[in-house]
Amino acid sequence: MITSLDHIGIAVRDLDVSLELYMNIFNITDVHRETVEEQGVHIASFMVGNVRIELTAPVNETSPITKFLNTRGEGVHHLAFRSDALEDDLARLSDNNIRLINKDPVYGAHEMLIAFLHPTSTGGVLMELCTHSTRR
Amino acid sequence: MITSLDHIGIAVRDLDVSLELYMNIFNITDVHRETVEEQGVHIASFMVGNVRIELTAPVNETSPITKFLNTRGEGVHHLAFRSDALEDDLARLSDNNIRLINKDPVYGAHEMLIAFLHPTSTGGVLMELCTHSTRR
Repeated sequence: MITSLDHIGIAVRDLDVSLELYMNIFNITDVHRETVEEQGVHIASFMVGNVRIELTAPVNETSPITKFLNTRGEGVHHLAFRSDALEDDLARLSDNNIRLINKDPVYGAHEMLIAFLHPTSTGGVLMELCTHSTRR
Repeated sequence: MITSLDHIGIAVRDLDVSLELYMNIFNITDVHRETVEEQGVHIASFMVGNVRIELTAPVNETSPITKFLNTRGEGVHHLAFRSDALEDDLARLSDNNIRLINKDPVYGAHEMLIAFLHPTSTGGVLMELCTHSTRR
């Protein structure tokens, strides 16, 4: 079951420049930084009350974020929803003609297992489902 | 102070078609519908755990959502954050060189007072600040 919004991924060109802007807007000081090699991204994330905002910058020119930035510019990249039964949810969505980018979950930031749904079957919104993993 | 994420606005062409899709993805049944003439939008909103998703369709060709759909297609339109002191937050942001679309709050859905920040000064993300009003 999809239980809640985990985070909003925002594509940015320069993590430091954008982080300064967002810290200014939201008056936040507590920031988590991480590089997720599997996804080709540097991230900086912080909480705004009930939700995590995840600024996402490309690690290099072949990162999926580079392609997004070149096509759409900076802005909301994906919405990540928490699932309490990730494989069941992926099977249910696939049965309902939702196209999966990741048929099998992969590792993302915060030690979570994640899977993306294709925006062509989710109304133009790139959605991620995620769940806590037991790795490490 | 900006306290939490209130809702995510998603631009859609046809409210009924999109609502069926989202009800399918999120397994939801409880939907609020409303037309906000001031904003030129029909909306259908529902909760996914901690957050409200607000599907937003244009009422006519002059709606701001029509322009968005023609330029960007369907997808995430805005992020709306709850403020516990809307006018103070707008003044603070303006002092920090954030460009305000609404210098003075206007009425939005759910009887809330809202104000939009211009995406050119917020990293490409159209942001709304909102607070409960005492109207009616």
